[in-house]
Amino acid sequence: MLPERFSDFARMVNAELELRVPQESIPPDPIHRAIRYSLFAGGKRLRPILCLASCESLNANPEIVLSIAAAIEMIHTYSLVHDDLPCMDNDDIRRGQPTNHKVFGEAIAVLTGDALLTMAMEVLSASSYQPAIRSRLVNMLAKAAGTYGMIGGQVIDMTSSNTILTQQQLENLHSMKTAALIRFSCMASPVALESGSEVEEAFGEYGNFIGLAFQIVDDILDIEGTTETLGKTAGKDRKNQKVTYPSLIGIEKSRELAKDFIDRACNIISPHDRHHYLRALARHILEREK
Amino acid sequence: MLPERFSDFARMVNAELELRVPQESIPPDPIHRAIRYSLFAGGKRLRPILCLASCESLNANPEIVLSIAAAIEMIHTYSLVHDDLPCMDNDDIRRGQPTNHKVFGEAIAVLTGDALLTMAMEVLSASSYQPAIRSRLVNMLAKAAGTYGMIGGQVIDMTSSNTILTQQQLENLHSMKTAALIRFSCMASPVALESGSEVEEAFGEYGNFIGLAFQIVDDILDIEGTTETLGKTAGKDRKNQKVTYPSLIGIEKSRELAKDFIDRACNIISPHDRHHYLRALARHILEREK
Repeated sequence: MLPERFSDFARMVNAELELRVPQESIPPDPIHRAIRYSLFAGGKRLRPILCLASCESLNANPEIVLSIAAAIEMIHTYSLVHDDLPCMDNDDIRRGQPTNHKVFGEAIAVLTGDALLTMAMEVLSASSYQPAIRSRLVNMLAKAAGTYGMIGGQVIDMTSSNTILTQQQLENLHSMKTAALIRFSCMASPVALESGSEVEEAFGEYGNFIGLAFQIVDDILDIEGTTETLGKTAGKDRKNQKVTYPSLIGIEKSRELAKDFIDRACNIISPHDRHHYLRALARHILEREK
Repeated sequence: MLPERFSDFARMVNAELELRVPQESIPPDPIHRAIRYSLFAGGKRLRPILCLASCESLNANPEIVLSIAAAIEMIHTYSLVHDDLPCMDNDDIRRGQPTNHKVFGEAIAVLTGDALLTMAMEVLSASSYQPAIRSRLVNMLAKAAGTYGMIGGQVIDMTSSNTILTQQQLENLHSMKTAALIRFSCMASPVALESGSEVEEAFGEYGNFIGLAFQIVDDILDIEGTTETLGKTAGKDRKNQKVTYPSLIGIEKSRELAKDFIDRACNIISPHDRHHYLRALARHILEREK
């Protein structure tokens, strides 16, 4: 069970995004409509919730990291919109709705992703922290999103279909494609609060481990889930001959590995997890059904 | 004639980009190769040269704004790579070479643009100015590139094919699509050097006017130039039924309007243009053949 407090966090993030993104009616059409379509399609808000939960765990008011949380969700949504493009994973359904390019066309979908990425940097650079912290957050987010992070992971993912990866290579791919942004989501609050490098490091390791577990569970759900429960196309990995943990070591061993990552994450974070939020969230990743 | 000093500026920018962008051989393949392909395809470097020339006009060593100049060229190149995509302007030739997606495929081309946009923010946020200046530069660049700047301009451009725009609407489109980044290129040095809001404003207006003139000349060249001299497909606007100044008011009146914009730019900048660089560059925009 997730703590009830997380519903507050999700509401706070949605309110912040509502405030930060231009209304649909504001020209130029239809870019703001397309941005809002994908941003408010009912995502779980896992990454911004992690950011807020980390902040509250550090005994600070989560309101103060809301702009970072909004930027994180913008980056996440941009990556989904671009990954779903026909030239990439070619997906029709996301968050239970037709994908952005299905509704607005490919050109607007490319620009929607570009705009969300740009807006994330705009929001972060105008946040209310000390300028040195703002710059550091922009730099960390850009690194997490760049060719040694999410973009690089997507490149490896696309170009490694049909090839053989070692378990180490697969972990590397997942740590770039999935864990880099989750890691940033966990580290942002300690950075903003100037909690010091040891605390940052602990939150970063926690984020990396839950990110790796998240991707393994994602790959298991792609096999065991349905398009209806997932809100995105099931069975894609097999169809696209993607290398995944289940394809490499089987479902049972994959589950054990995910559990092992979560155990390590919980151990690392327990000294800082005063409300038990972060361990609850880690456990939830193992049990999630979508 | 352009001042000889501009060749130095172009060389300095290329050296800075060479330093900032990972080598081709660095994994993950092939993203760094694709980034370098488009970045070093022989662009004119107009925008970063403007940034360096502005800096020297303000009596400062242009070395100190090289990281900004590199970020500007990354943003410009990202926008070209995405604009050339089959779902956008569908162009095969750029800077005299096959477009990124023609060589690396559409998926890598999308990711190349994403990576260049992300890298620009990374470079800017790690530059050596005071943190408050760094944050402000990131924020200004994000605004110039966003839905009220370049992205918004591209949206209007794409969705207004075949429709009638007033001259005011066309100027608005050009000021977003083309002039916003040129304006930033001119304002960045006064911002970095803390020259004060009046100087910033003058450089910004100069940039806006030469940006508007640049786009008019671009549209005239699309009619009068050849694919060979331009290094990009000629005659595109007519084929795509784009509204341009030549289509709206004819070539001669367009030329007069461009000259008028350049005159205004020169008047505004003359008190700050100690080496005559900025006026020479403005005049060159009228005479350029590619």
